[in-house]
Amino acid sequence: MTHISTDLTTAYAELVARGLSLDLTRGKPSPSQLDLSNAMLGLPGDGDYRDAAGTDLRNYGGPDGLPELRAIMGELLGIPTDQLLALDTTSLPLMHEVLVAALLTGVPHGDGPWRNVEGVSFLCPVPGYDRHFAICEALGIRMIAVPFTDTGLDLDTIRSLVANDPSIRGMWTVPMYSNPTGYSLTVEEVEALVAMPTAADDFRIMWDNAYAVHHLTDDPDPVIDVLGLAAAAGHPDRPIVFASTSKVTFAGGGVGFVGGSPANIAWIRKHWSARTIGPDKLNQLRHVRFFGDAAGVVAHMAKHRALLEPQFEAVLQILEERLRGVASWTRPRGGYFISLDAGDGVATRAIALAKEAGILVTAAGAPFPYGDDPRDSTIRLAPSFPSLDELRAGIDGLCTCVLLAQQERAAAAE
Amino acid sequence: MTHISTDLTTAYAELVARGLSLDLTRGKPSPSQLDLSNAMLGLPGDGDYRDAAGTDLRNYGGPDGLPELRAIMGELLGIPTDQLLALDTTSLPLMHEVLVAALLTGVPHGDGPWRNVEGVSFLCPVPGYDRHFAICEALGIRMIAVPFTDTGLDLDTIRSLVANDPSIRGMWTVPMYSNPTGYSLTVEEVEALVAMPTAADDFRIMWDNAYAVHHLTDDPDPVIDVLGLAAAAGHPDRPIVFASTSKVTFAGGGVGFVGGSPANIAWIRKHWSARTIGPDKLNQLRHVRFFGDAAGVVAHMAKHRALLEPQFEAVLQILEERLRGVASWTRPRGGYFISLDAGDGVATRAIALAKEAGILVTAAGAPFPYGDDPRDSTIRLAPSFPSLDELRAGIDGLCTCVLLAQQERAAAAE
Repeated sequence: MTHISTDLTTAYAELVARGLSLDLTRGKPSPSQLDLSNAMLGLPGDGDYRDAAGTDLRNYGGPDGLPELRAIMGELLGIPTDQLLALDTTSLPLMHEVLVAALLTGVPHGDGPWRNVEGVSFLCPVPGYDRHFAICEALGIRMIAVPFTDTGLDLDTIRSLVANDPSIRGMWTVPMYSNPTGYSLTVEEVEALVAMPTAADDFRIMWDNAYAVHHLTDDPDPVIDVLGLAAAAGHPDRPIVFASTSKVTFAGGGVGFVGGSPANIAWIRKHWSARTIGPDKLNQLRHVRFFGDAAGVVAHMAKHRALLEPQFEAVLQILEERLRGVASWTRPRGGYFISLDAGDGVATRAIALAKEAGILVTAAGAPFPYGDDPRDSTIRLAPSFPSLDELRAGIDGLCTCVLLAQQERAAAAE
Repeated sequence: MTHISTDLTTAYAELVARGLSLDLTRGKPSPSQLDLSNAMLGLPGDGDYRDAAGTDLRNYGGPDGLPELRAIMGELLGIPTDQLLALDTTSLPLMHEVLVAALLTGVPHGDGPWRNVEGVSFLCPVPGYDRHFAICEALGIRMIAVPFTDTGLDLDTIRSLVANDPSIRGMWTVPMYSNPTGYSLTVEEVEALVAMPTAADDFRIMWDNAYAVHHLTDDPDPVIDVLGLAAAAGHPDRPIVFASTSKVTFAGGGVGFVGGSPANIAWIRKHWSARTIGPDKLNQLRHVRFFGDAAGVVAHMAKHRALLEPQFEAVLQILEERLRGVASWTRPRGGYFISLDAGDGVATRAIALAKEAGILVTAAGAPFPYGDDPRDSTIRLAPSFPSLDELRAGIDGLCTCVLLAQQERAAAAE
């Protein structure tokens, strides 16, 4: 019979006794990261309100967003300026709105509004981003989870599902430094996604490139030209690209972008024209003044990396010390998250034990549609926000909870 | 037989020969008005990013919007802070989003999603705001025009329609200084609207109080407490209030608000939680720093009035000189528009003649659902944007076109 180690029980009791109060739930930039953009708080400055063409940005108009800012982000994403719109202060409402438009009016070259599709569904590679899943749930789009394999996307399953089920109209993906695994799609995977036959002619990939410039190494993963590859594969309208400056400048005052084929852009422009006279172009000018150019964004992101890298290293080091051989985890080359596989049936209990000890981590199941982690093993770790000391204390405490939950489970199984 | 006056023909030929290029189409603030808020361009300023509670506004969170700004606008609108949310940079997307939510999920205490209602319809007092009608058209909500009478709303028709037709789920209104007539609802009218029996239990009034603080007289029309009157009448959820700073600070960088009963606010909050992590709170802080308090808004609006009043006076004076006895028009006490009734069958032709002479005014029919002005008589005048000289030249030229169109029509009728 396996006993629960007295050492672990003691360690956990000591952890609870410390009375910690740590919040590791969300991928929020830290105050030090936000300080990097403080100069923006006084921009553009009195008297500065015109774009390069001389347009007065204080007034209505300019529904596509500021061309200069779209050019900067377009250069970083490999998307022509006229195929990239800057429409809101974050990207999540843009994703929501694109799906609303698809439901209410249908997408270009489709067979009508998706709301008329019986059981309209999306594929969700898992673990994935909880807010993508929340949008689908709110809009009544059924989600089909497709677990990542050890080597990446489960393309065989994805291909088979989309080829045979016309109710599947789309798929979520975070192509670079994915939330929460940190995985970046390979060129081969992207080619497969844009080329695969689909039962629904109007299949769309929601391409949330949230971390395109959020590298953590000297050897960044490349931005793959998904629009170009899709056009070459004969499916130019399949991907719709999203990006944002929320984790570049201010999460509460950035810019959200949407990119796509000319047909998708015309469709988005038409939908938006009924709902707004234009985005906040002054905030976009503020970003142009702050960045200068695309190289300015890259230089700015290097400062973020300098702050983030030690946080990620600290987490990985503690995981290595405490959980080597009894759990596995991802080693991201960018982005905001580490995904910890704590073992079957362990996540919920470990997270509950951690909460009891004052350590809040993302809810068990959150990276899965409907909050359902079938193996109950995934814990999403968000290293960015806490101070280094708090982060170390929190992750170390969480490891104690994972070990205790594993032992409890082993004991119960005998 | 009526001849077309040689004088008028000559006057029009001279007008065309002047080669004007004037745009009187939209109710945009003028550059001088925008200059009033230029100090905002440098706000909040480096180091200023916390609200009164100490929250870091540079980060995610605060989905309801900044409490201090909601308190300021709430004081002006007579709405408690917790019933007024600041969710976007303008109000039009909020109106669109509320209707999207109603279509997709239904409203509180309703009988389900409006998309399931056969022929779901809205009442539209006319002439009204073209962008309200564009939202309905884009979302597939049928519009029923109800012309204003000489004394105000046609309450008999409105009451009869909503009492008998359960497909009518709502109504648009601009309660103060309406676009384009300048009409403000009376307390009696508001009481009638919130009290009237409706066949649909979930009837909603889209209460677009766009011009609540946009007075042009020393004796401002009052903000009527529609939420209080609706609650007293037993229909607390009927009105949903919208407001915006687009014509207070910057049209391209303001704040949009939505207010309502606790049930409506909870419903809106839930819908928004799936689509965003929070609005641009830094832009809201910028507004708080600029206004100071509600009195600061009132003082700021007095400066707008000083710029706008001469514009309105110039238009009214020219109309009086040129069209007295042959046309009628409204004399607004606030807001952004004058509505000219040019006579049956005259508007389209007069606007075309004006365009030929380089004077662009709002398209004929725009203030009506589906662009259909049954009498073809309404021309919306927007005095705010042009310089006083351009405005005088444009309105004088337009009067020539109206007179010529009237004479052409009289001649054709014989």
